[in-house]
Formats: sequence, structure tokens, C-alpha cells
Amino acid sequence: MWQNTPLARKLSIRYPIIGAPMAGGATTPELVAAISNAGGLGSLGAGYMQPEQIKKAIRKIKQLTNKPFAVNLFIPCDYRVTPQEIQLACTALNQSSTELKTTISACDYHDPPSYDEQLGVIIEEYVPIFSFTFGIPSTKDISRLKNNDILLIGTATTLTEALLLEENRIDMIVAQGYEAGGHRGTFLGIEEDALIGLISLVPQLADCINIPIIASGGIMDGKAIAASFSLGGSGVQMGTAFLTCLESGIHPKYKKTLLSQVKDNTVLTRAFSGKLARGIQNLFTKRMAHHLDTITDYPIQNSLTQKIRQKAKSLHSSDFMSMWAGQSAHLCKEVKAKELLKSLVDELNVIYNTN
Amino acid sequence: MWQNTPLARKLSIRYPIIGAPMAGGATTPELVAAISNAGGLGSLGAGYMQPEQIKKAIRKIKQLTNKPFAVNLFIPCDYRVTPQEIQLACTALNQSSTELKTTISACDYHDPPSYDEQLGVIIEEYVPIFSFTFGIPSTKDISRLKNNDILLIGTATTLTEALLLEENRIDMIVAQGYEAGGHRGTFLGIEEDALIGLISLVPQLADCINIPIIASGGIMDGKAIAASFSLGGSGVQMGTAFLTCLESGIHPKYKKTLLSQVKDNTVLTRAFSGKLARGIQNLFTKRMAHHLDTITDYPIQNSLTQKIRQKAKSLHSSDFMSMWAGQSAHLCKEVKAKELLKSLVDELNVIYNTN
Repeated sequence: MWQNTPLARKLSIRYPIIGAPMAGGATTPELVAAISNAGGLGSLGAGYMQPEQIKKAIRKIKQLTNKPFAVNLFIPCDYRVTPQEIQLACTALNQSSTELKTTISACDYHDPPSYDEQLGVIIEEYVPIFSFTFGIPSTKDISRLKNNDILLIGTATTLTEALLLEENRIDMIVAQGYEAGGHRGTFLGIEEDALIGLISLVPQLADCINIPIIASGGIMDGKAIAASFSLGGSGVQMGTAFLTCLESGIHPKYKKTLLSQVKDNTVLTRAFSGKLARGIQNLFTKRMAHHLDTITDYPIQNSLTQKIRQKAKSLHSSDFMSMWAGQSAHLCKEVKAKELLKSLVDELNVIYNTN
Repeated sequence: MWQNTPLARKLSIRYPIIGAPMAGGATTPELVAAISNAGGLGSLGAGYMQPEQIKKAIRKIKQLTNKPFAVNLFIPCDYRVTPQEIQLACTALNQSSTELKTTISACDYHDPPSYDEQLGVIIEEYVPIFSFTFGIPSTKDISRLKNNDILLIGTATTLTEALLLEENRIDMIVAQGYEAGGHRGTFLGIEEDALIGLISLVPQLADCINIPIIASGGIMDGKAIAASFSLGGSGVQMGTAFLTCLESGIHPKYKKTLLSQVKDNTVLTRAFSGKLARGIQNLFTKRMAHHLDTITDYPIQNSLTQKIRQKAKSLHSSDFMSMWAGQSAHLCKEVKAKELLKSLVDELNVIYNTN
């Protein structure tokens, strides 16, 4: 049976299909629970959430499902900025979003939520699976998580990162291909040097890594899932496919944009957050392409653009929203998560001649 | 049987595995014939060759094999340049290659071989299969080729290009993924907007195109070939894998560099030819990254850098050679083409449980 992979067994799930943790509101408790209830693994993208919000969301998920699910956090990374750089960034942002009639200034910078407190909630609330990106938790935190029987899923964009995750006793690795929507998980070196297509990345990891590999990036149908298995993946993580599900929390305009994609129109940009991420090209990403030198490190840029993104949502303007999406976004459908899972499973049963 | 695909039947070959046409001397008549003799389809990369050289190479291939093979040409594209731009390009090239003690000037520009005469040879010499890149032959040429029972293989990097090829009665399409080594085949719009990972590109084409699709880019082993079939490919085209074969005509230093690759170290660059291409990062590509504005259109830049590449070869300096390679180059092995084919077939027979 195609679904009985080491990953599925380790996670105690029926189908080795993980719903990607998409921070920013896409992965509502309803979406997470729906994916888990349908036999996959739902993941809460909690990177931007305050500890109290995470606690509330976890409790909601547990009300909606008794199946395993994951919560994802961002490993904090170093950043540097001078007041002059913030000033320069604000000027470029204001020039690139005049239509919104909002003004960004240095005062708009706010520190991200405390990672330690976020992690504390995950442990206190007995979350079964912790996934993370942008780095590796400290040895102390890894031991703490393992002592609490929490399974760990790391994110790698290169073989070097994957080897480091395995060395640090991480249980499973998401291999994030170049095609993936949203933020690049790269944590060693610069993101531009770690843009490896999935067909090159997964076999590379499969040849060298002994823990289950989860292929991610551009996977939207049974064909790509089957290809991921052929490449040596033990499962897949799908994000964009779930963005247009009825349970997803993205803005209606963002959803509409995804559903009207007829061909790949994504771009890699640092404009919204300071970290390289793939999303639908729009007026803001095009304008900011002329101000690359002004973009500050993550999380500063992310904090500075928050007002722009919020105003864009209130005005229903897709010109200034961040609309993360992978290279197969044209395959988006508006369905219930359960129906999406079912159609993928049906497709795979036909491919593998099982049922 | 995995090998009995529409592509294999149409090309009258045993295994749906095509050796990529690599211009610049890699695809010697010996390599082309060895691949065809082993049951695949060898291709001569003749884009840079004079008509007389092509004729000689074709005759040599026919001496070495009675199996089908392909010859590949570049469809001529528009280019524009001013004397000032050539001057600027020469200055940047000279600054970036001081160690070679060679001086590039406007006099080093030479027109590329005549495409019409190249095509004439292909028809006169009864080449069974004509593959092409950078565009589509004229309607008149397509009719002429078809009247001579020559099968046509086009190259697409997007769905739009693939649809246009199909409309123009091309028989098969190479879907060139982002991972591919060498020149991007893009002919509609700019190359940067047509960098789609193979896992996103192939299913997109498979859903809309009715002629056989040949997956290419980053395919080096049985795992990736099987994945290509899962994605909807009817066969694969492999380039980098054949570069280090004993019959390949690349410079020993280039071969050595490929064989010592431990992980992906490729970069997309216009520095050598004016067209975006993927190759191993070296001193020249790094330096030229600071002179992007000086790079002239293909084929001018290609002609201007010829002396640099030749001098680099004579000095055995990998710092200034163009060393095209795809994102799975770390899998290169030094073997006979026949042995490489055999090992791929063995791997696929295990995967598909056939023999």
C-alpha cells in the first residue's frame, strides 16, 4: 500500500500527506483539524502568533479532532539594522504603497512574539508534533521536547542543512524545493544559494539521510505525490493546495487571485518580510524590485510592512497583499479540505492500483 | 513495461532516454552513437557548428550506428547592439579575465553559422530526428522537414511555449525544468519569468498537451526518471549525466570539476553567452555578476567570450571555462555511455519490478 510509509507510521497518520504550516492566518484550527480528521496531518503555522493565541488555537484544534497534528514555529535568527536603514526602508515602502494612504515610520517596528514563550505553550499543551523552520532548536530545547514525547520535524533546503538536522536528532525532515510557496527555510548561507528544484533535492537527501524525508514545493496533485515517492520521499507537505480550501483563513481576494491563476505567476521576493519567499507577483513586489537595497532583515521588514498588508486587506486590494504561493498554484481548487484529501487519495489509488 | 512509452514508439528506440544535445563539443559523434546503440537516443548539439562540420559529424555518427539519432540547432533570435555596448562589454570581459592575458575587442565578434545552411545539411543528410531550441522553425521549414519524414522535437520552458509548439505541428516537446544545465530554451518573454521547477512544469504540460513530453533538468538517476514518468512525462532527456562519460568531448578539467562536485554549486548566468544558462560557479561567473549591465545579447556575448573560453582550455583553467551543469551534477560518474544507460535501465527494472 502506497500510504504505509515510515513517515505515516511514525506520525500515526493514515496518509503521508502533511498540510503545510502557513503562518499569517491561513492554517485556522478548522483547517488543521479537517486535514488531520481526513487522515493527513494538519499543521498550525504559529510563527507570528502570541503565546496566548497559540494556546487558544491548540485547544480549539483539540476540540475539533482527536488525531495527531503539528504546530510550527520560527527559530529566531540574528538580524542587524541601524536607524538610518530603518528610515531608508520606510521611505521605499511609502513610495511603493502611495495608493494605500498609510505612512510607515520607525515606530511601526515591533518585536516578534517570544519564541521561548511560544515553545513553552507547545510543551504545556501536549502538542504531539513540533515542526520548525529557519534553523534548529537549541540542544536543551530538543531534549526538553523529546522528554515530552514530542516528535520533531525540521526544514531543509540543502543537503548540508538536512545533515545538520539529522545530527541534532530531529525525527523527520521537510525537503523544501525551489518551487515552494512562502518563506524559504534556508538557515545556512544565503537563500539564493539554496534554491534547488525538488527533483534534484529529494534524491540527494534520500541518498544520504536515514530519517524520513517529506517532499515539499509545487506538489498539488497525485502525479506530483507519486513523483515524490519515486524520488525517495516518505511523504509530502502541501501548502498552496490547502490555501483555497473552504477552511483556510486567507483573505477572499487572495483566494480569488489564486483561483484565477491560469499559469505560474510567482516570484521570489524579500519585499514583505526581509526573508526570501515565493508568492504571486503584484504591484508591490514589482515596485519593490527597484528598491532591493532598502529592504531590512527579517523580522524588521516584516514588522514594517504589517500596516501595508493590513490596509490592503481592509481595502480588498491584491496589489499590496502578500499572497504566498508555490509554482503549481494554477491547480488551486475551492473545496473542503476533506474533499481535497479524498481526491488525492483516489488519484493515488488509481496510480498504484490499490483501493 | 516501463520503457514502452508513446515517445519510445514514436522515436523507434528501446528506452525513452534521450542524450541531450550539448553544443560546444560535448556530444561527439562517438557519444551520440554510443547512446543510440545502447537503446537510447543520442543527439548532436550542432548549434555552434559550421554546416560542413555538421555534415562530417552526421556521416561519422552513421558510420558508428544504424539506430536513430537527433541533431539539434538553435533557432536564430533577434538581437540588438551598439558599438558603445560592445566596447563596454569588452572592457568588463577584459577586467574579469586579466589572468588569461588576452584582450577582447570589437574585432572578436563573428556572426554565428548560417542556420539555413545548417538546416540544409540536416535535410540533405537524411537525419531522422531534428530537435531545436530558442524558438520554432518557420512554417515553411516545418513543412519541408515533415515532407522529408524528419521527426521534430521542440523545447519549452513554460506551458505557453509548449502550446505554441504543439500548434505548429511539432511531434514531441522537451519540458526544460529550472534545474537543467546549459542554456534556458525560453523563447517567449524573459528567461527569469520562465524558471519553473520540473515537478511543477511537467504535470502542467501533461494536463494540456497531447503530444509526448520529455522531462529534462536535474534527472541523473532511476529515481528521477521514475518521478518524471509519474509526473506525466513520456521520456526524459539527460545532459549532465553524459558529460562525464568516456565518449564526451568536454575538456578534462571540466570533467574533473564535475566529478569532484559534492553538492550543488551551479548558478544561472548570462556572462558567457548573453543567454541565461546554468553552470558551475567559478571565478569568471562571480566577477561578471558585478558587471551584469555590460552583458550583450546572444550571440554577441557568446562570440566576444570565445577567446576567453579557448584560452582557459589551453591553460587548463576552470576559472574561466563555461562548465554547464544541472542541479544534480554531484551524481556525475566517469563511465562509458553504454554502462550509464545499463545502470539506469537496471535501476528502473528494479523500481518497476520488470526485467
